[in-house]
Amino acid sequence: MRFVIIGGDAAGMSAASRAKRNNPELEVIVLEQGHDVSYSACNIPYNIAAPEREIDDLVVRSADAFRQKQEIDLRTGHRVDAIIPEEKTISGIAQDNSSFRLSYDHLLIATGASPIRPQIDGIDLPGVFVVKNLEDGRGIKEFLKTRQVRQCVIIGMGYIALEMAEALSERAIAIDMIKPRKGLLPWLDENLAHQVRTHLDEQGVGLHDGHTLEKIVQQGEQLQVISSDMHLDCDMVIVAIGVSPNAELARQAGLQLSVSDSISVDHQLRTSVPEIFAAGDCADSYHLVTDEKTWIPLALRANRAGWAVADTVCGHPVRLAGIAGTAVFKTFAMQVARSGLTQDEATKAGFEPVSVQIQAKSRAGIYPGAQPIYVAMVGDKATGLLLGAQAVGTDQVAHRINAVAVALQAKMSVMEFTQADLAYAPPFGPTWDPFLIAANQLLKKLV
Amino acid sequence: MRFVIIGGDAAGMSAASRAKRNNPELEVIVLEQGHDVSYSACNIPYNIAAPEREIDDLVVRSADAFRQKQEIDLRTGHRVDAIIPEEKTISGIAQDNSSFRLSYDHLLIATGASPIRPQIDGIDLPGVFVVKNLEDGRGIKEFLKTRQVRQCVIIGMGYIALEMAEALSERAIAIDMIKPRKGLLPWLDENLAHQVRTHLDEQGVGLHDGHTLEKIVQQGEQLQVISSDMHLDCDMVIVAIGVSPNAELARQAGLQLSVSDSISVDHQLRTSVPEIFAAGDCADSYHLVTDEKTWIPLALRANRAGWAVADTVCGHPVRLAGIAGTAVFKTFAMQVARSGLTQDEATKAGFEPVSVQIQAKSRAGIYPGAQPIYVAMVGDKATGLLLGAQAVGTDQVAHRINAVAVALQAKMSVMEFTQADLAYAPPFGPTWDPFLIAANQLLKKLV
Repeated sequence: MRFVIIGGDAAGMSAASRAKRNNPELEVIVLEQGHDVSYSACNIPYNIAAPEREIDDLVVRSADAFRQKQEIDLRTGHRVDAIIPEEKTISGIAQDNSSFRLSYDHLLIATGASPIRPQIDGIDLPGVFVVKNLEDGRGIKEFLKTRQVRQCVIIGMGYIALEMAEALSERAIAIDMIKPRKGLLPWLDENLAHQVRTHLDEQGVGLHDGHTLEKIVQQGEQLQVISSDMHLDCDMVIVAIGVSPNAELARQAGLQLSVSDSISVDHQLRTSVPEIFAAGDCADSYHLVTDEKTWIPLALRANRAGWAVADTVCGHPVRLAGIAGTAVFKTFAMQVARSGLTQDEATKAGFEPVSVQIQAKSRAGIYPGAQPIYVAMVGDKATGLLLGAQAVGTDQVAHRINAVAVALQAKMSVMEFTQADLAYAPPFGPTWDPFLIAANQLLKKLV
Repeated sequence: MRFVIIGGDAAGMSAASRAKRNNPELEVIVLEQGHDVSYSACNIPYNIAAPEREIDDLVVRSADAFRQKQEIDLRTGHRVDAIIPEEKTISGIAQDNSSFRLSYDHLLIATGASPIRPQIDGIDLPGVFVVKNLEDGRGIKEFLKTRQVRQCVIIGMGYIALEMAEALSERAIAIDMIKPRKGLLPWLDENLAHQVRTHLDEQGVGLHDGHTLEKIVQQGEQLQVISSDMHLDCDMVIVAIGVSPNAELARQAGLQLSVSDSISVDHQLRTSVPEIFAAGDCADSYHLVTDEKTWIPLALRANRAGWAVADTVCGHPVRLAGIAGTAVFKTFAMQVARSGLTQDEATKAGFEPVSVQIQAKSRAGIYPGAQPIYVAMVGDKATGLLLGAQAVGTDQVAHRINAVAVALQAKMSVMEFTQADLAYAPPFGPTWDPFLIAANQLLKKLV
């Protein structure tokens, strides 16, 4: 039996490794168009922050290790051009430019996502980078090594943009950030977003939201990012305005697409053609709170989905629960965490959302190092269900969100969540965890 | 209507405040035998660590504030000697040594717990302290201020003992710890307990487990702690071998007692006499995993139970879920967290426990500052249910346990927990959270 995987990144290599561990007799072929497999893309910003580290430190396992230790038929430099479902065949161009055709019993599409590049003049100038794969990371590190970069403009203000702001600041580069829409982190509660903005202001980051980008121009060694009403001089530009799923192959093969043109899959990660699976950033998922399709490309889901496909292919069918939409990042000292729905998302999903915002302390108030922590929480007036929560702060924010993530998975009511037996000791929080304080307040609004 | 509360600590004052907020017309009388109310007992070790801080910094709200701002009839220095349920009356001795009788419509027993003192010679010598209330804290701080304390022996190795070891070490005091039974933190998985022991060794703490205490003797300014086979010289002794519930009043009144002679209460915190409630460290609770009675005296439960009683008394009956047995503490840099059952507890409770121990990293492996984190997890072979977990490590351990606490509350299976959508970003963990790594391993043993 032959299991073919298109894409050698998180979902693809997780699936390949697990399939071989499950069943060493299975023929597993991975077709990767690039040359890097199994690297930690999420760590690129932190690697860029440190001149002494090599970008290849991010490689978790080498292509050769997959080939020799796991006997995976990993073919790098192989680009797949077409899937022919009715023939259970794919075709493409091999590394030596010859064309190939390959039949499969099971196929996994794990083509990931690509950074969105705005269609403006100058986007391809030297010194303009996206941050997605190792090649991008290499390019940025090489540029920083060979050029005197004092100022960088980051286009976009999402989490990768904000992680890059921190990373480049650590290299003493002044940062300006620009985006067309007004407002930082629009999915965050306004009060929480304000805390993040204040923190970035204090770090000297220039935040220019509400400026439509027109072009990037070169002026000698320098670049200039030009919007309708301002221009920003810099030595380097980072474009980080989001990603879009690599679903073109699936679309051409007639597979059903979904939210944001991601590939539609069921709880077993099967596409509209049952023997073709999709997993990772190219595929959609069910949201645990809405039970609707959503597209939230994150690493844990990609790994988990890769494993699930491998198990199913090997005869141990796995049904994946949905995702809670849990996400966390850090920019400078500020930690930002979320799970579930925001008030707006809840309204759109047909709930009757009620929300609260509270401020508490990260440790017992009188314990040294206690910092403010801000929590927003959303519940449903009609059912009493917990719908989501967000938090920001500079101390011990990130993992607290996991209590909410599990509560959402269990479809707990706000009332039930107020009774959660969360950990307490003075170094780690007030007696009532900030999320419990928020839940207690929210409960009052729900009854 | 009169609501009488015996005890002005966490549960008692939470109940009093909330009852008054719920219903300002309610007559609320609190009888407290001491003079301090509403202080943070859990913070005493950290306060002792810092000579510049006053023990009164731990007072959350003064007695006068309760009296004047909340119109609570708070009577300090009032000792209750008897409860006469059939007459709905209590009697006792007032601050001026006069006796008093008082009728009630609802009574809350919130008498807390008292430190256990071993019955040995010398336990009452000057320089021998327990760590429970503000008076104890004052005594220790005064002793440290007026005496040259270079060495301290701590009797006991539980979490308060270990917090005190850290606190006194910060004041450059050398620490020896002694207890009769072999083994540090017997409720922890052996591999995890070993990590804690190694950390304490590295801090220079002398750990003498397996030594039966015989007496404490005074030798000039010095004390000597003498066991069957060793003696330890010191300037001060801390006794921290645990607490026992203050249930004597309840016992004499004929109320039903429970585990460890705590006061038996139902999900509404009612004792065996319906109009008498008990809450806080004197009362028992249901364990969420076993559905059996348990006695785990901790601050969050005390506060929550006080609130619940107040709501019920005010006509908004609250039914409290059980507790998951979540606890966390820190000793030096080592964080220790648990929730649910250990393997032994699970066996005793009639489960068919299977467990795993794993080692992972606190952050992405290549992210600066990543430290080992050790997780033990227990599941039930018969049902697949998650039964409990524990973790130790020096970085970002504490709040991770909350995901398990909520999963236990939701009675999740290990399989369900493996699908939890936990937060991931490189500064905060590997892609698979250490608890997910443990759950994935445990699942293999369960299927």
